[in-house]
Amino acid sequence: MSQSMQNNVYALILAGGAGTRFWPASRAALPKQLLPLVGTSPLITQTAERVLPLVGWERLLVATGKHLVEQTASLLTELLAGNMLVEPAPRNTAPCIGWAAFRVARTDPDGVLIVLPSDHHVQDVEGFGAVLAEAVRSASSGMITTIGIHPTHPETGYGYIEVVDDVTGIEAMAALRFVEKPDRERAEAFVDGGRHLWNAGMFIFRARDMVAAIRAHMPALAAGLDEIDRAAAAGDEDAAVERIFPTLPSISIDHGVMDHIDSFAVVPGDFGWSDVGSFQTAWELAEKDMAANAAPHGSVFIDAKRNLVMDLRKKAPDRRVIALVGVDDLVVVETDDALLVVPRARAQDVKEVVAVLKARGDGKLV
Amino acid sequence: MSQSMQNNVYALILAGGAGTRFWPASRAALPKQLLPLVGTSPLITQTAERVLPLVGWERLLVATGKHLVEQTASLLTELLAGNMLVEPAPRNTAPCIGWAAFRVARTDPDGVLIVLPSDHHVQDVEGFGAVLAEAVRSASSGMITTIGIHPTHPETGYGYIEVVDDVTGIEAMAALRFVEKPDRERAEAFVDGGRHLWNAGMFIFRARDMVAAIRAHMPALAAGLDEIDRAAAAGDEDAAVERIFPTLPSISIDHGVMDHIDSFAVVPGDFGWSDVGSFQTAWELAEKDMAANAAPHGSVFIDAKRNLVMDLRKKAPDRRVIALVGVDDLVVVETDDALLVVPRARAQDVKEVVAVLKARGDGKLV
Repeated sequence: MSQSMQNNVYALILAGGAGTRFWPASRAALPKQLLPLVGTSPLITQTAERVLPLVGWERLLVATGKHLVEQTASLLTELLAGNMLVEPAPRNTAPCIGWAAFRVARTDPDGVLIVLPSDHHVQDVEGFGAVLAEAVRSASSGMITTIGIHPTHPETGYGYIEVVDDVTGIEAMAALRFVEKPDRERAEAFVDGGRHLWNAGMFIFRARDMVAAIRAHMPALAAGLDEIDRAAAAGDEDAAVERIFPTLPSISIDHGVMDHIDSFAVVPGDFGWSDVGSFQTAWELAEKDMAANAAPHGSVFIDAKRNLVMDLRKKAPDRRVIALVGVDDLVVVETDDALLVVPRARAQDVKEVVAVLKARGDGKLV
Repeated sequence: MSQSMQNNVYALILAGGAGTRFWPASRAALPKQLLPLVGTSPLITQTAERVLPLVGWERLLVATGKHLVEQTASLLTELLAGNMLVEPAPRNTAPCIGWAAFRVARTDPDGVLIVLPSDHHVQDVEGFGAVLAEAVRSASSGMITTIGIHPTHPETGYGYIEVVDDVTGIEAMAALRFVEKPDRERAEAFVDGGRHLWNAGMFIFRARDMVAAIRAHMPALAAGLDEIDRAAAAGDEDAAVERIFPTLPSISIDHGVMDHIDSFAVVPGDFGWSDVGSFQTAWELAEKDMAANAAPHGSVFIDAKRNLVMDLRKKAPDRRVIALVGVDDLVVVETDDALLVVPRARAQDVKEVVAVLKARGDGKLV
């Protein structure tokens, strides 16, 4: 299980997402993967750095939306222009994963493609590399493979992957099915049962296997991707994508493919994974001072504990000091055009702010 | 009791103060009178507007420190250059009030000078005008006169003026003495007794009367002011002030003069006065929405009550929205180089932030 580069391994980073759970940090035009929500570099940069030792820039693909191309490219400055898969319209994950699979299959059908979300956090990068290597090995044998995270608590915010046997070790094992986000009771049963893993949204497969699965279960998608593929072979991919991509079925790879194939594998992982789904999680993962405050260097805390402070201003005219006095468990986030103060436990309510701003026509703030 | 202009009435606004109680809004280089702590214009502008109907720009003097000249002048654009009394060094109130009194006495010894702090708030401007007119009438008769505010509660943060008889009406009456800030018990006795008024720090007198009082009780100050006066008559006031002012005794007019004169008068006032001594007071005086939040237009409050939000940024690159969700009774203040979050009830603790910043060498932030 080495992490060294293999010239038939490719990676696709899914970087089209948007979201308002991190408003005002995140925006429609500035989704979470472009932000340094954990650590000092943007999540997408960290994602690329995790997989680059395996694939190199030559074989690193990034799928994103038109409106995010510029910002994404500015963060991944060495990304090859041709390796940016620009989706003219959001069609969920099946079309863009299919696009990448068809593209790799054209020249390297046995090539293994690693598909990774761009906006997750991994604490143990080395452990992640080992899991990925095992997943590549599994995929090389012809099995579409996923990664499942050992659940540490009955999380209701994640989907799960049910496996056939009890989970032991980190070797690839047979998966039974994907399970939607459960309610609390079922989540507890999953954790107790030892046969459910968190679905981390990662897929590893030989290009030919995914192409075959799409042909078998999503013929309409296959037809569209064939057309793009023919245009690409003729040197005219962009125009074809522009024309065809928006007509492809909008569906996740989970529902479009994984739910229908006869069998797939999962590599159980335990590398400090998080989808960084909330300010709460961002605070948990952040570096904190002795009073458990996470804040920019130079912030002043007087009798203030467990606060999360984020300064995401870019046009800042001056260095700025942030001082919190006598407040606990707050989230304070500032950007160039917004300032948010909310208790960490209520951070999900920022969606109401977004709703107010939309309603009053402040669309550019959301 | 008219508010119309009289050509022998002058005003002196004391605008040399500094303070850190409103950090980060206020700074050594940006004291509270220069800030719009209540309403939309700076307190000094509001102070000038209250007295200008009585004196006009011709007879409006402003005393301030060297480091504040530029900012003060930028707020009072019509102030005559010669009417700015620039103190080369802070010497408390007796020297600069004396300077103004000697200056007026040189050409108009019977002229009446109204001395006003620059950083107070007055709710009932008309009522204030009536009290001022009565004070001018009293001063014209040769009595150094002050204004005393009917106490509405046993405030321990103010000095008091004890009067001889029970207070009734708003006519000038004989004052007995100034009383330093009392403890709670004495303050309660003052309010119950009906013979104590809040000392609002305002003085009204004929120039010749104050000159005589200074000659009688502060001969060293009188000697220095005589020297400045002679230089001024010879057209060389600036150099003399530069040389002499820093050598004058540093003492308040209360202790230097008022404690020693045989008698003085007080006009009892009831015009919604406040010294705007804290964020708490600023919030009380501010215009508030239905949930008692005081904030810039466009702010968003979701389940948030009784908060005070101040945006005092000047170099703001963009319009900015401030959103508070699920928090009550907070003070949130932002300037170009600082952001403060503190419960209103703990706002006095910002002095600890100032201490931290000083200790670590961030002097320009305080």
